[in-house]
Amino acid sequence: MADPDSAAEPAFQPEAPSSAAVVGCGVIGAAWASRLVLSGVDVAISDPSPDAAAIMREVLANAVLAWDDLGLDTSSRGEWRMATSVADAVTNVAFVQESVPERPDIKAAVLAEIEAAANPTTLIGSSTSGIKPTTLQATMTHPERLVVGHPYNPVYLLPVVEVVGGEATPIETIRRAQSIYAGIGMHPVHVRVEIDAFIGDRLLEAVWREALWLVNDGVATTQEIDDVMFYGFGLRWAQMGLFETYRVAGGAGGFRHFIEQFGPTLEWPWTKLMDTPDFTPELVDTIVAQSDEQSGAHDVRELERIRDRNVVGFLKVLEQNRWAAGKAIAAQRERES
Amino acid sequence: MADPDSAAEPAFQPEAPSSAAVVGCGVIGAAWASRLVLSGVDVAISDPSPDAAAIMREVLANAVLAWDDLGLDTSSRGEWRMATSVADAVTNVAFVQESVPERPDIKAAVLAEIEAAANPTTLIGSSTSGIKPTTLQATMTHPERLVVGHPYNPVYLLPVVEVVGGEATPIETIRRAQSIYAGIGMHPVHVRVEIDAFIGDRLLEAVWREALWLVNDGVATTQEIDDVMFYGFGLRWAQMGLFETYRVAGGAGGFRHFIEQFGPTLEWPWTKLMDTPDFTPELVDTIVAQSDEQSGAHDVRELERIRDRNVVGFLKVLEQNRWAAGKAIAAQRERES
Repeated sequence: MADPDSAAEPAFQPEAPSSAAVVGCGVIGAAWASRLVLSGVDVAISDPSPDAAAIMREVLANAVLAWDDLGLDTSSRGEWRMATSVADAVTNVAFVQESVPERPDIKAAVLAEIEAAANPTTLIGSSTSGIKPTTLQATMTHPERLVVGHPYNPVYLLPVVEVVGGEATPIETIRRAQSIYAGIGMHPVHVRVEIDAFIGDRLLEAVWREALWLVNDGVATTQEIDDVMFYGFGLRWAQMGLFETYRVAGGAGGFRHFIEQFGPTLEWPWTKLMDTPDFTPELVDTIVAQSDEQSGAHDVRELERIRDRNVVGFLKVLEQNRWAAGKAIAAQRERES
Repeated sequence: MADPDSAAEPAFQPEAPSSAAVVGCGVIGAAWASRLVLSGVDVAISDPSPDAAAIMREVLANAVLAWDDLGLDTSSRGEWRMATSVADAVTNVAFVQESVPERPDIKAAVLAEIEAAANPTTLIGSSTSGIKPTTLQATMTHPERLVVGHPYNPVYLLPVVEVVGGEATPIETIRRAQSIYAGIGMHPVHVRVEIDAFIGDRLLEAVWREALWLVNDGVATTQEIDDVMFYGFGLRWAQMGLFETYRVAGGAGGFRHFIEQFGPTLEWPWTKLMDTPDFTPELVDTIVAQSDEQSGAHDVRELERIRDRNVVGFLKVLEQNRWAAGKAIAAQRERES
């Protein structure tokens, strides 16, 4: 079933992979593995860190809580195991998701290890948030089976995944990736033009840059910036995004009226401050201290559970209202039944 | 009761104004008037447009639906009336909120009309999203009673209001404004340093700029950009904002670890594309057509009701979880009881 949101894109059938490997098991890799396991897929995990298995157990526990709370089936889980090597993890699996550190040299070395042991037709998704797939493909022997599949944390709850092909990626590989990601409950967005940082991180970096200036210049604290977001426009973006929100703001005149009314402000001086502050030790200290004051009362695991409980609540609301991310949950529930 | 989120700020007592005028009754002004009416405040509305009364009735109807759905008391409403002039509206009221078009010359003329008739101690809040209060104060006879009180639409639902003083604004005026805004259920964030566009619109403009490039360059459609937001990071920002989200991403190492891990990517080339595309007729046509395809199945009033139902659902979830914007609703409910 094609997503009705992407009318211009050909149909694909959601279908979970028959088996999978997760290479790199930090917060992102463990969340991928958790989503796969909860979707009934057996997963082999490779990570050299002695902490990897503990991270996996903690993240999976959070994921089970969240899916239970959403009322999704968590009873028919796949098995997971820590593999002894990349080769051990990827041998004879249908799908590999790579989530190693964000350095081109590390990515290239790990992709070489994956290719040395995996079946040549095994689909490989990379979690990179910024490196172009064509760059990753440059040193691969079978580059045609690589896509970027860029998720957003918590991967076991947020449905979106940006699917990006490189110069060597045929459209069939894109479709296979969309099918696999949709099969584990996700909403794949095909990024049709290959650019650094894709769609979401372009937007995130723009906000991050501006927020750093506000802290650097002493205009606002981390708490004040976050307050403006979650008492304000964050409640809009969880359900309509930027353009649909502004369409509504334009009133009956639609988007043309909105641009006529507000477009010219883009030429005002306040939008020209676009370089980036240096991460001086002083700026880092300021941010760390403000963040500690803002959020230090909760440890990170506790914050993760709070976050998940909130997102679960939002997803239930959206599913009931048949809107936005609620559609991904509804589709998943329908396939379960 | 001071908000515990703003520990560094002295306490203020929430107290709705005894009466109010709303000058300028477009979507924003009507939503201010609705929030005031639902908070039990009598409101006189001034707007030269023949459509103003109809806009007020439509927006108030949406606001009543939303507050009923939230379970807030909508029975003890204030009265509202369309005034015959600015002078008629503002004479003998305790509080004036100005929401006329975003042009310094229009704002100056309207502020002069307000001052000519209002009591000299009447607090005046301006809804401007970008003009500095010092600029607005330049031509005023009693500039010491002006603040910017910048809200986010829908004003009757989203709690945040940025309170910004100009050079002529004493701290007592800031406190009175915080007290009034909190008294009608809002979460005032004092923007302590006066800059163009304040906090929120800095962040919004950064995203808008980047999104325009993505559409302009044909990288993504308005639908694809919105999808990445509301299937993804929008669900984070409705509850934690930017900094708390990244703190969690940093894991047990906290914000310092996050910056060490991700800060350097700011120096990568993809963050340097920071000028703004021209609003050529072609770009406007592209955005309008994409927005029509994305959202054209619903008219704007319908989209507003969908938006409100979603936000109400989010606010209920957050109130139950005692988190973020849910705290503003909880405080309001407590004062009602």
